Amino acid sequence: MSVIFDYLRHHRIGLPESVYCEGKDANILNDLLAELVQKASHPVLFTRLASRQLSLLDPALTGLLDYDEISLTAYLNGVFPQLEKGSVAIVAAGTSDLGVTLEAGRTLSYLGIRNTVYADVGVAGFWRLQERIEEINTHNVVIVVAGMDAALASVVGGMTDRPVIAVPTSIGYGVAKGGTAALNSMLASCASGLMVTNIDNGYGAACAAFRILRNQYAG
Amino acid sequence: MSVIFDYLRHHRIGLPESVYCEGKDANILNDLLAELVQKASHPVLFTRLASRQLSLLDPALTGLLDYDEISLTAYLNGVFPQLEKGSVAIVAAGTSDLGVTLEAGRTLSYLGIRNTVYADVGVAGFWRLQERIEEINTHNVVIVVAGMDAALASVVGGMTDRPVIAVPTSIGYGVAKGGTAALNSMLASCASGLMVTNIDNGYGAACAAFRILRNQYAG
Amino acid sequence: MSVIFDYLRHHRIGLPESVYCEGKDANILNDLLAELVQKASHPVLFTRLASRQLSLLDPALTGLLDYDEISLTAYLNGVFPQLEKGSVAIVAAGTSDLGVTLEAGRTLSYLGIRNTVYADVGVAGFWRLQERIEEINTHNVVIVVAGMDAALASVVGGMTDRPVIAVPTSIGYGVAKGGTAALNSMLASCASGLMVTNIDNGYGAACAAFRILRNQYAG
Amino acid sequence: MSVIFDYLRHHRIGLPESVYCEGKDANILNDLLAELVQKASHPVLFTRLASRQLSLLDPALTGLLDYDEISLTAYLNGVFPQLEKGSVAIVAAGTSDLGVTLEAGRTLSYLGIRNTVYADVGVAGFWRLQERIEEINTHNVVIVVAGMDAALASVVGGMTDRPVIAVPTSIGYGVAKGGTAALNSMLASCASGLMVTNIDNGYGAACAAFRILRNQYAG
Amino acid sequence: MSVIFDYLRHHRIGLPESVYCEGKDANILNDLLAELVQKASHPVLFTRLASRQLSLLDPALTGLLDYDEISLTAYLNGVFPQLEKGSVAIVAAGTSDLGVTLEAGRTLSYLGIRNTVYADVGVAGFWRLQERIEEINTHNVVIVVAGMDAALASVVGGMTDRPVIAVPTSIGYGVAKGGTAALNSMLASCASGLMVTNIDNGYGAACAAFRILRNQYAG
Amino acid sequence: MSVIFDYLRHHRIGLPESVYCEGKDANILNDLLAELVQKASHPVLFTRLASRQLSLLDPALTGLLDYDEISLTAYLNGVFPQLEKGSVAIVAAGTSDLGVTLEAGRTLSYLGIRNTVYADVGVAGFWRLQERIEEINTHNVVIVVAGMDAALASVVGGMTDRPVIAVPTSIGYGVAKGGTAALNSMLASCASGLMVTNIDNGYGAACAAFRILRNQYAG
Amino acid sequence: MSVIFDYLRHHRIGLPESVYCEGKDANILNDLLAELVQKASHPVLFTRLASRQLSLLDPALTGLLDYDEISLTAYLNGVFPQLEKGSVAIVAAGTSDLGVTLEAGRTLSYLGIRNTVYADVGVAGFWRLQERIEEINTHNVVIVVAGMDAALASVVGGMTDRPVIAVPTSIGYGVAKGGTAALNSMLASCASGLMVTNIDNGYGAACAAFRILRNQYAG
Amino acid sequence: MSVIFDYLRHHRIGLPESVYCEGKDANILNDLLAELVQKASHPVLFTRLASRQLSLLDPALTGLLDYDEISLTAYLNGVFPQLEKGSVAIVAAGTSDLGVTLEAGRTLSYLGIRNTVYADVGVAGFWRLQERIEEINTHNVVIVVAGMDAALASVVGGMTDRPVIAVPTSIGYGVAKGGTAALNSMLASCASGLMVTNIDNGYGAACAAFRILRNQYAG
Repeated sequence: MSVIFDYLRHHRIGLPESVYCEGKDANILNDLLAELVQKASHPVLFTRLASRQLSLLDPALTGLLDYDEISLTAYLNGVFPQLEKGSVAIVAAGTSDLGVTLEAGRTLSYLGIRNTVYADVGVAGFWRLQERIEEINTHNVVIVVAGMDAALASVVGGMTDRPVIAVPTSIGYGVAKGGTAALNSMLASCASGLMVTNIDNGYGAACAAFRILRNQYAG
Repeated sequence: MSVIFDYLRHHRIGLPESVYCEGKDANILNDLLAELVQKASHPVLFTRLASRQLSLLDPALTGLLDYDEISLTAYLNGVFPQLEKGSVAIVAAGTSDLGVTLEAGRTLSYLGIRNTVYADVGVAGFWRLQERIEEINTHNVVIVVAGMDAALASVVGGMTDRPVIAVPTSIGYGVAKGGTAALNSMLASCASGLMVTNIDNGYGAACAAFRILRNQYAG
Repeated sequence: MSVIFDYLRHHRIGLPESVYCEGKDANILNDLLAELVQKASHPVLFTRLASRQLSLLDPALTGLLDYDEISLTAYLNGVFPQLEKGSVAIVAAGTSDLGVTLEAGRTLSYLGIRNTVYADVGVAGFWRLQERIEEINTHNVVIVVAGMDAALASVVGGMTDRPVIAVPTSIGYGVAKGGTAALNSMLASCASGLMVTNIDNGYGAACAAFRILRNQYAG
Repeated sequence: MSVIFDYLRHHRIGLPESVYCEGKDANILNDLLAELVQKASHPVLFTRLASRQLSLLDPALTGLLDYDEISLTAYLNGVFPQLEKGSVAIVAAGTSDLGVTLEAGRTLSYLGIRNTVYADVGVAGFWRLQERIEEINTHNVVIVVAGMDAALASVVGGMTDRPVIAVPTSIGYGVAKGGTAALNSMLASCASGLMVTNIDNGYGAACAAFRILRNQYAG
Repeated sequence: MSVIFDYLRHHRIGLPESVYCEGKDANILNDLLAELVQKASHPVLFTRLASRQLSLLDPALTGLLDYDEISLTAYLNGVFPQLEKGSVAIVAAGTSDLGVTLEAGRTLSYLGIRNTVYADVGVAGFWRLQERIEEINTHNVVIVVAGMDAALASVVGGMTDRPVIAVPTSIGYGVAKGGTAALNSMLASCASGLMVTNIDNGYGAACAAFRILRNQYAG
Repeated sequence: MSVIFDYLRHHRIGLPESVYCEGKDANILNDLLAELVQKASHPVLFTRLASRQLSLLDPALTGLLDYDEISLTAYLNGVFPQLEKGSVAIVAAGTSDLGVTLEAGRTLSYLGIRNTVYADVGVAGFWRLQERIEEINTHNVVIVVAGMDAALASVVGGMTDRPVIAVPTSIGYGVAKGGTAALNSMLASCASGLMVTNIDNGYGAACAAFRILRNQYAG
Repeated sequence: MSVIFDYLRHHRIGLPESVYCEGKDANILNDLLAELVQKASHPVLFTRLASRQLSLLDPALTGLLDYDEISLTAYLNGVFPQLEKGSVAIVAAGTSDLGVTLEAGRTLSYLGIRNTVYADVGVAGFWRLQERIEEINTHNVVIVVAGMDAALASVVGGMTDRPVIAVPTSIGYGVAKGGTAALNSMLASCASGLMVTNIDNGYGAACAAFRILRNQYAG
Repeated sequence: MSVIFDYLRHHRIGLPESVYCEGKDANILNDLLAELVQKASHPVLFTRLASRQLSLLDPALTGLLDYDEISLTAYLNGVFPQLEKGSVAIVAAGTSDLGVTLEAGRTLSYLGIRNTVYADVGVAGFWRLQERIEEINTHNVVIVVAGMDAALASVVGGMTDRPVIAVPTSIGYGVAKGGTAALNSMLASCASGLMVTNIDNGYGAACAAFRILRNQYAG
């Protein structure tokens, strides 16, 4: 039982296949990593790679990885060359959502997209957002990461004309637990033209931003 | 089978019993109205009284009612004397929520509480809210009526130090349908100290504001 | 009680305010329309305007509207000038979703974005999609409209490198009723980088595509 | 990546910013605590600070905290001066909800509001509530903390004319698990004018009571 | 396609088969009624028989029915002989729930069980319940019918040692809509030993009471 | 905007494309019907064709249809030749589910599969099922149609060794409303090897049975 | 902060107060136990007392308890005298539900009610139930404990004329996880007159049976 | 308290009883295993047997088991003789679902059905599926195991005329967590005639395939 990696996907649809590690057996993961170390000629991204999983793999192999324990991502063979133009602002409501925020940032860096994180600019401290909105608008795409009521997405959506990708997070308690309240708030936003990803899907938001910028600048 | 009205409730707990009409049989409603016309010595409020229901009652009786077809409320024997001090700002995201907004307003007027409606100040047109926030803050209590993502409640909550009562509304489609998204967004608000009522419960929000102001100014 | 229209929004954030009609009282809608006929100097879009509502308005005013009864949209003062570059492919799984599909199309046309509808290319008749995918990929942005299992979104996402905006629809029965199954399927898609809107939100998908193309070609 | 604390919030909206610790990385929390020890001139409240998190911080810093392990709250620089007038009754259905009850109580004490806890007065032992209702009514605001069926909130709401803030709790099993049954029961209460917070949100209830009393006595 | 009626069920399990009419085609219902008029030698109960359905049946047949338009029940061949001992108190929170209350009452009468309805004794007007509780306790079984927060069930459960059967109702709005909040509140009741039926199932509650009393007095 | 019919699907995957009519515009449906009358050389099935829709179509065209108003199905060009071997038992809990039951039956007949309906054999009248189980087991596949608690599916599943396809129905009230309770009961059945379709999906169950029998007897 | 025990409840409503331990702090529990050892003159029942909690209490006190680790119940001062007449059959679908089954059994024994457990008589092995149904029917009340599809409750309900109390359990996976599928199946049962408790509430079912039998035999 | 095993079930309904171990007490499990070692003359399958449970049983007994730690299944007395004809293709979207995939495979092997696993053929790497579809179609029945959006089931359903049994899995995050999104996507599939099992129910899918093949080849 082994994984069949799609080595040529980036040639077909622009985005390389990455390795989603959650729920994968350590043996299978180790075999795949060994194969990739041998065969992959381009950078490979691992997502949702828990420290606990990492510790079960062959150290000789994991030593080749650039691992980040907050975003649970790892690079093999570094990252893709940076796109000359285009950049992404990642706006986050608080440091509780840092894992998701950095998953988006690390995925963008892997894909060669410049990006800047604006953390802790939640609606309750509105002045923090107002101080930064002009700088945020110098980027081509805005990713908003927020949990709880996710009001930040609506507010940012009303202050920028850039494409806005909203990522709900699962941090919270009571009705906010699991992220459904944030997700629904973003989907129902009164700000026109928000685009939403799955809860905690910083990776997907980065891929979406990549699709937008690659067509704009590399097409 | 008849309704036993609680004529003395306003003596016991300050708030008079009102008549919730939804789902009540027309015959029972007519009997109750006839009894109240004869026996009630104080103003009586009817809520959720649909035009269709009203048309099935005895015109000689309904002629005595002050009925409003948008809020679906009616007064019998006018309203209570106005409290000398204290007032409520009712802030609404749009005219789609007008029925709920006016249910709150008409209930406050019935209870003798001055109130002003600030409609159509949604987050997407943020300048409309900013232009009015100073005036809104001259009131003692703020009721926020909002559907969809209900981001207005969080934003207002961050711009006022007044007690804020948030009323989610059921207007909307997709995930916003029925008002659960707005309710959860308000409950999970990152603005501290919001208090929330049931979906579309303009009446309850007015009663809550009455409890606050009556204790403050009439206690 | 009247609506305060945001005449200058398109100067501030690029997207003009449009009039969402669902749940709006006919009198309020009529007053707003009369005001817009007098004051609006740019094209105005009405969405979710039911035939039944339209019939309650002043015919002298509604005669000025370009109304489409399938998408429930109307234009006042025509549409914005067409952007010279950039176009959108709207891919739909079936004619049951036609209202949502055309809401997206009519909104794009209003905003001056060229667009083509590819209807009835569902997964069950896979050959219909394969025959058109090359042409679909000549557009800059792809909007996928689908209900039921929404598998079309994942399949299209795997066959294009364009930004993909997925719109779940509420058509369906049993677990598909209301569109939540389609929404969740799109959010959980194994195709990387899909962006999702609220259920039946063709308008929002068009605004999102506008944000992408306006930044690309008009920025 | 660091937290930007809002040192001036209590000047702007009356309520100081507090530090919500759930899900925050220990390093970030430690940095913030170190900064606050140096820069904060007013009392600071930490909420949802688990013992496990506390044990990961610098003992030299945590030694400055007044920590309570049941409510998971901590004070830095003590509490605000007590408001001369006004007090809050916190009524709880049982000792299973003690954590939430004390979070409300400790937050009120921090904000300078006198408060008394009336624990274990559930509906099943109705005489316990009846014996205390007169004393409860000597307070200005009543907070009701209850899980399971939350019937206590409705019963108390019918026995007092004070503003009532209802806090559902997540304690329970089966349909009561997570607190949604209690939340919905409070929102749907037949007692008029209840105001509800998120599940387990003792902190929010205290902030709401503070908004009410501050406007009444300190305005 | 015809219905096969279970003429002998009351011999086998004590309870006769009744005819649940909701969703049944008028032709099939008419055929069944015609057959029962000819063949049934014992009383037969029809439940959820809407006036609209009734009007589509053969008047010569429906003329033989004792129909009640509030409870939507009909008797054919009258009712069973009254059990000599045992009676049921049906306690209801308000007249909005009258249909369900009377479905329980009419079913009990059909089964030969004496019963008394105590309507409009909701928790908000607690004195109305306290005035009647002694009389209620003279019955052998208590059925509580309540919607919204269903707090009445918990309160009654704490004031009687009789078997208590709780029937949630679907009347209500917002989170109370459809009756799930009432159902969960009853299931999670802090009063020990409540037994609950499906939402709006007055018929089932009556059958449950019949099982209890039949075993007690007729066994 | 027109429908592109898949005339050759039955050559590709064995099952012809059928026309799902729910939510389809009458003009589009009429155009499709006109095209099929001209071009289709094989039998065509229409499902979920409401009487109201039918009445909006060209009578000259609808006159060619074999329409059944209970199952909402119609045949154009008759049905496929009957498969020589193999038959299906359709077991239904009651006549309330007749529409779904007959949708399964009419679809099987259209596909050329012999089938027999065993209606009104619910668990409450267990003897009715026991009397027929032997005959039911003479068929090759068993389809069980049931709403409410759907216990019939589990019971039948324990009494036959045939493939069992379970179809939950939406008939019911309270927790049974919409069919989710029946669906989940079938999915969680303690009888091993049940296969389940979407709620009310008689058509899908028939197609599934066709897949089984076609491979067995026509492969 | 201490618990106020209701020593006289069994005099008031027949059922003594028991101690629900889930979520209770060990210190509070220990204080209460110490108090009860000194003051309680009647048997006291502890429910949901986890082994882990027990191990944190004073061994001198816990040594006085009769603890059962499967049902998580403990007796202090033994049990109440056995009622001379009346008994309960507890029918369970499988040994996976044993904890709930024994919670019901141990509570009945505590209350002085004779009871017999019939375990592992699930619907899939129908003969096991048929072999025992006659003996089950010699009892006065039947409690059915079942998870998954809970079809056992419907089947037993159709084979007995005794009062049937149905207890859904949370054992299961997928849609059965948490017990909602079993709960809804029982509430929607086609067997008339089932009475249902909260998920896993063996204690409540026993109290309900006690209410029935106490009124029948001790009234 | 012991388990009563149904030794003769395979004689009655073709499928032997297997032992579902989740939630079963170790003592009870050990007793049952000891009994089966002595009395069972045919192969017995254990499912959901966690390693942790296994380690608590008597090694002398567990040494007789053929245990697989990924699928959590064990064989006692080997497997049933292989059916001469008929085979099953198990198609899986990824290695994250391997546990469920192998539960299906191991159960089929136990029942004597030949089967082949086609893993990692997800929709995002569509070419992997296209390369294998011809070989997949050489089998008599197709089982599709998929989580997330479960689009694989719809796509496979449109490429084969074989009976398709779809097994949703619980792997995933956000809206995909727990498997409901995959389940609903499969139930709502636009591919006709899919049959669905409970989430993660590889065992059930194998039993369903066995019912189909046994009737086809062993009937």
